[in-house]
Amino acid sequence: MKLLKKMCEIHAPSGEELAMKEFLLNYINDNQINWKVQPTLHHGHGFQDNLILVFGKPRTAIFAHLDSIGFTVKYDNEIVKIGGPVSTEGIVLVGEDSKGKIEGKIIKKKVGMFINFKREIDRGTSLTFKVDFRDTDDFVQSCYMDNRLGVWNSLEVSKTLENGIIVFSSWEEHGGGTAGYLGKFIQEKYGVMQALISDITWVTKGVEHGKGCAVSLRDSGIPRKSYINKVVTIAKESGISYQLEVEDAGGSDGNELQKSNYPWDWCFVGAPEDNVHSPEEKVNKADIQSMVELYKVLMEKL
Amino acid sequence: MKLLKKMCEIHAPSGEELAMKEFLLNYINDNQINWKVQPTLHHGHGFQDNLILVFGKPRTAIFAHLDSIGFTVKYDNEIVKIGGPVSTEGIVLVGEDSKGKIEGKIIKKKVGMFINFKREIDRGTSLTFKVDFRDTDDFVQSCYMDNRLGVWNSLEVSKTLENGIIVFSSWEEHGGGTAGYLGKFIQEKYGVMQALISDITWVTKGVEHGKGCAVSLRDSGIPRKSYINKVVTIAKESGISYQLEVEDAGGSDGNELQKSNYPWDWCFVGAPEDNVHSPEEKVNKADIQSMVELYKVLMEKL
Amino acid sequence: MKLLKKMCEIHAPSGEELAMKEFLLNYINDNQINWKVQPTLHHGHGFQDNLILVFGKPRTAIFAHLDSIGFTVKYDNEIVKIGGPVSTEGIVLVGEDSKGKIEGKIIKKKVGMFINFKREIDRGTSLTFKVDFRDTDDFVQSCYMDNRLGVWNSLEVSKTLENGIIVFSSWEEHGGGTAGYLGKFIQEKYGVMQALISDITWVTKGVEHGKGCAVSLRDSGIPRKSYINKVVTIAKESGISYQLEVEDAGGSDGNELQKSNYPWDWCFVGAPEDNVHSPEEKVNKADIQSMVELYKVLMEKL
Repeated sequence: MKLLKKMCEIHAPSGEELAMKEFLLNYINDNQINWKVQPTLHHGHGFQDNLILVFGKPRTAIFAHLDSIGFTVKYDNEIVKIGGPVSTEGIVLVGEDSKGKIEGKIIKKKVGMFINFKREIDRGTSLTFKVDFRDTDDFVQSCYMDNRLGVWNSLEVSKTLENGIIVFSSWEEHGGGTAGYLGKFIQEKYGVMQALISDITWVTKGVEHGKGCAVSLRDSGIPRKSYINKVVTIAKESGISYQLEVEDAGGSDGNELQKSNYPWDWCFVGAPEDNVHSPEEKVNKADIQSMVELYKVLMEKL
Repeated sequence: MKLLKKMCEIHAPSGEELAMKEFLLNYINDNQINWKVQPTLHHGHGFQDNLILVFGKPRTAIFAHLDSIGFTVKYDNEIVKIGGPVSTEGIVLVGEDSKGKIEGKIIKKKVGMFINFKREIDRGTSLTFKVDFRDTDDFVQSCYMDNRLGVWNSLEVSKTLENGIIVFSSWEEHGGGTAGYLGKFIQEKYGVMQALISDITWVTKGVEHGKGCAVSLRDSGIPRKSYINKVVTIAKESGISYQLEVEDAGGSDGNELQKSNYPWDWCFVGAPEDNVHSPEEKVNKADIQSMVELYKVLMEKL
Repeated sequence: MKLLKKMCEIHAPSGEELAMKEFLLNYINDNQINWKVQPTLHHGHGFQDNLILVFGKPRTAIFAHLDSIGFTVKYDNEIVKIGGPVSTEGIVLVGEDSKGKIEGKIIKKKVGMFINFKREIDRGTSLTFKVDFRDTDDFVQSCYMDNRLGVWNSLEVSKTLENGIIVFSSWEEHGGGTAGYLGKFIQEKYGVMQALISDITWVTKGVEHGKGCAVSLRDSGIPRKSYINKVVTIAKESGISYQLEVEDAGGSDGNELQKSNYPWDWCFVGAPEDNVHSPEEKVNKADIQSMVELYKVLMEKL
């Protein structure tokens, strides 16, 4: 969980994914020697701050978004949202501008939402939740499980992946995500049209802690049923514990793929969390284990 | 109307268009011998469950969506919407899961909307309205006139079509429709940039039963005026009865084309119906007749 | 300001940009002889009513939308909106249909919004605000500063532009804008991935009249921070007065680029106005001057 903790501490709200990309490039550089297959990397010019790893002869692509929710400083320390973060008074935000480090609590006034800080912060400065990473026997808890855990899962899968693509995408939390053009690149260069969305979902009445990774049958987006059926069949035959999810709200890079001008079969497969989009996102370790195992099987069988 | 009735009875909500595609492939296989021109078919890998028919040297493409509205079963027989169906208590829904056929009425509770059925239904099972097809002298009435009638119109036009494309698309009702990537294929392979949207619209103060097919000047989307003017001029000169529609809500595959990364001129041309998105969709036969005739002329003159 | 006044008087709501395009083609034809570089023009088949100017070896593209907000006539002189115009009772609208010129005031009834005019207007007729152009020492005021001023700015920049692209786009006000496919063309043909959005923004608490052109750090869309930083650094070093804007609402062709299937770095740079989307849009002349100067520097340095 050290790697996960490190990634949770990286400041990378939507539009500022650069630090996450650089962390991953270093990590891959240091660790791929121990991976079964060394991937081809696509990044840099024409890829903004995204990163694509291609292993062997890919048939399926994993999408994991690098960005987190957060806040942007407006005028006189007023703040507005990046994506849909919980914004209860008292939540501690951190960031940095031209004058130095920033740390302060959210306060609400009639005229808007502010960060309580001793000096005026530069316009446009982005703020993220202050990290309090808690690792117990059964749970991991911190802000940004969504989606540093989805990224972490992808890195775990990378260790033994022989054929497949891993896409680290941007802007998923705020809209205007890059899964569209990254998907275009993949379809045109590798002919890959199947996707798994490595992201974190919600604990609900139907999806509970500790019962396994969720395989989402739909959310606000509806994926093609025949593909979903394939995923569920493989999950069932694997013997790995999993839960079937059905929602009519929420979205992911799956929606970006669905809306793009390319034919994508996609399925959201991810561990569920409590306290969504807050500093207290909490995931059961058994579900994380199930997620990694399920991805390994799916990438082999799909 | 036998063919229309058959198609209304096919279970194909957004994401499960496969059955409609297979029905059409069989129908085309059996009937194209009697068509003026035998079309080239595009479907299968890279087309999901969509189907494209290309006749002669096409200048214009007809888009007709295969999917219908419906419901997905969540947990404990709770249901959520696919697209925007009417969901009044008492409406009868049907479907099938791993344990067999399903039929039950919509019931509403404080905690949500449910199907009243004797056993727990598999998560993710899709349900559609139970069909009650009524064919009288002047009207056809059933669920899913929208858009099995738009599909039926396309098949009628196919009989004599010499030059043109017919696109059977998916996910129109729910969002994330495939008109975008199907349009991309058409523009890149055939250079066709003109579209007609073969779909069903609303009876309103300005568009009445029996006064002819509606030519929509706009809805939530605004098509290019100069193209719309061309369509209206051809309609006027044809002597076929038609009505001009202006709305600021509602959408169609036209919006998908408009939002895609390709330059499309599009116009919605379709018969109006009462009781939109309910099991009681009702269309005047004279308007259906006008729709078929208008499409024949438009496909020749555009 | 004569040229600006002329352009404000051209009737070109979303979907009817043709008149603006033709005006620009004539203007360019008459004036490019005096420009430092004569641009290559792209328009016509496959470009709808848009127009692209390519100067030298471009690295950055300016996007300025041609269309305005307005209204469409429905049934019995009821009107519905094109984009998001202010629609206070008494505002005077003008247009033309098959029977002649139209001028009348907005009136509101329980059943809807109407234009008060002596005869029934043709369905689908578009109406725009009646122009009252006011040019004083410090301010220009008229409807359609947004975005005839953004177009005007692009023409000013054209006079001395050596390397760059100028895109005149459509449907920005209503949605379904053409920046997506025009951007596709530019990236594929010229490899240009950097954009500036030449459009008009809002006077707010943080952005005031006369303090210079606004450089927007974000609105409803969030551009890539590293690109924004480049723009701000160039602005700072230029010595030209400018203001930093941060909003969480509002959008522009920047959002269309962000949502397209192409990797775009974009930044909104434009003068602020009072009385947004009304017949009284008011812009400070110093801010217009700053806008032109800033664009000249940015197009050279980016």
